[in-house]
Amino acid sequence: MSPQELIAALRKRYATKHFDPDKSVDPDAFQALLEGLVLTPSSFGLQPWKFIVVRDPELRAKLRGASWNQPQLTDASELVVFTARTNLDDADIDRWLDCLATTQGQSLEALAPMRGMMEGFIGRLSDEERHSWNVRQCYIALGQFMGAAAALGIDTCPLEGIDPTAYDVILGLGDSGYATCVACAVGFRSDSDHTAARPKARFDFEEVIEFR
Amino acid sequence: MSPQELIAALRKRYATKHFDPDKSVDPDAFQALLEGLVLTPSSFGLQPWKFIVVRDPELRAKLRGASWNQPQLTDASELVVFTARTNLDDADIDRWLDCLATTQGQSLEALAPMRGMMEGFIGRLSDEERHSWNVRQCYIALGQFMGAAAALGIDTCPLEGIDPTAYDVILGLGDSGYATCVACAVGFRSDSDHTAARPKARFDFEEVIEFR
Repeated sequence: MSPQELIAALRKRYATKHFDPDKSVDPDAFQALLEGLVLTPSSFGLQPWKFIVVRDPELRAKLRGASWNQPQLTDASELVVFTARTNLDDADIDRWLDCLATTQGQSLEALAPMRGMMEGFIGRLSDEERHSWNVRQCYIALGQFMGAAAALGIDTCPLEGIDPTAYDVILGLGDSGYATCVACAVGFRSDSDHTAARPKARFDFEEVIEFR
Repeated sequence: MSPQELIAALRKRYATKHFDPDKSVDPDAFQALLEGLVLTPSSFGLQPWKFIVVRDPELRAKLRGASWNQPQLTDASELVVFTARTNLDDADIDRWLDCLATTQGQSLEALAPMRGMMEGFIGRLSDEERHSWNVRQCYIALGQFMGAAAALGIDTCPLEGIDPTAYDVILGLGDSGYATCVACAVGFRSDSDHTAARPKARFDFEEVIEFR
């Protein structure tokens, strides 16, 4: 991708207000976006998340009721709910180090210094700080996901205006150890979406980017 | 960009441990990445951030001292510090609505309902919640930025292991209304970076992505 193509894709991207309910995302393209989510970088590589693709129309309608009735919830081709680990404990560290050891053929002994570093860092955080940290990692995933979709010519709408607690109930997350933090609708803008044609409003480059 | 090219780019991306200090990022490509930062989506479009590109070698060395002495701070071609608005108040809302009205030729009267919505939402947050919210928006920018760099074949390293308070002092952020939350080094991996060749470790797709 050239710098010009990147800018064109990011300029075209906008938080789609009205999706065309008759346009579906190509399965290969959506699969690539999901694999992109799996590949998202996270602090220490801990991947403190699960991403839930909601396709059942009844669940979609219920989620819409917990999202200020925004039409994107039911009109978009796909809907992804981003959930963050509600805590991080030794079991999470074990799970990650096991994955790392298996994939890279390393011994757990060789990874002991990394374990110490993670335990030290996580141990200094309160429960609330730990969850906030996990939520921030999910926002890395959200940013990469929307940019990746734009690169494929696919529209998205980030959904922060949702009731995460209601989402957790609707999706049955209960004591899963994961809680909803944000969602993202995926599809194609409707031809009748008037807001799509408005000029993109951003603060000036010079106000946002500083050089030292 | 095709789905296959996207996956290849995201698979190649990794948190670069050793940058080649002799390889510079092409100015046009870096400019595109910076414009991409300006274009990052944010809640209500409020853009509660400034991105600081640090090029002065002395400042870079000082920041390295506040970053566990990680070599990326001084070896990478470029370094971007992500700073989040420490608060959000009526002046921020005014600034954004002025920008929106000017860019899109709308009257401030027509934007009054949007003002009400923003004021209502922000008013319900504590100071701390407001700052955390701004920080999360910066992480959207971070995720999109690293993905965009990968799409251009440019390496990055997200830097969470930093002392944000020390950064604020070194960069003279003082009472600017912005505070460091994370940083990102940008450049090209060194040929001697052994970790770059290790297989990418991720939890299985089925563990991370659920369908409902």
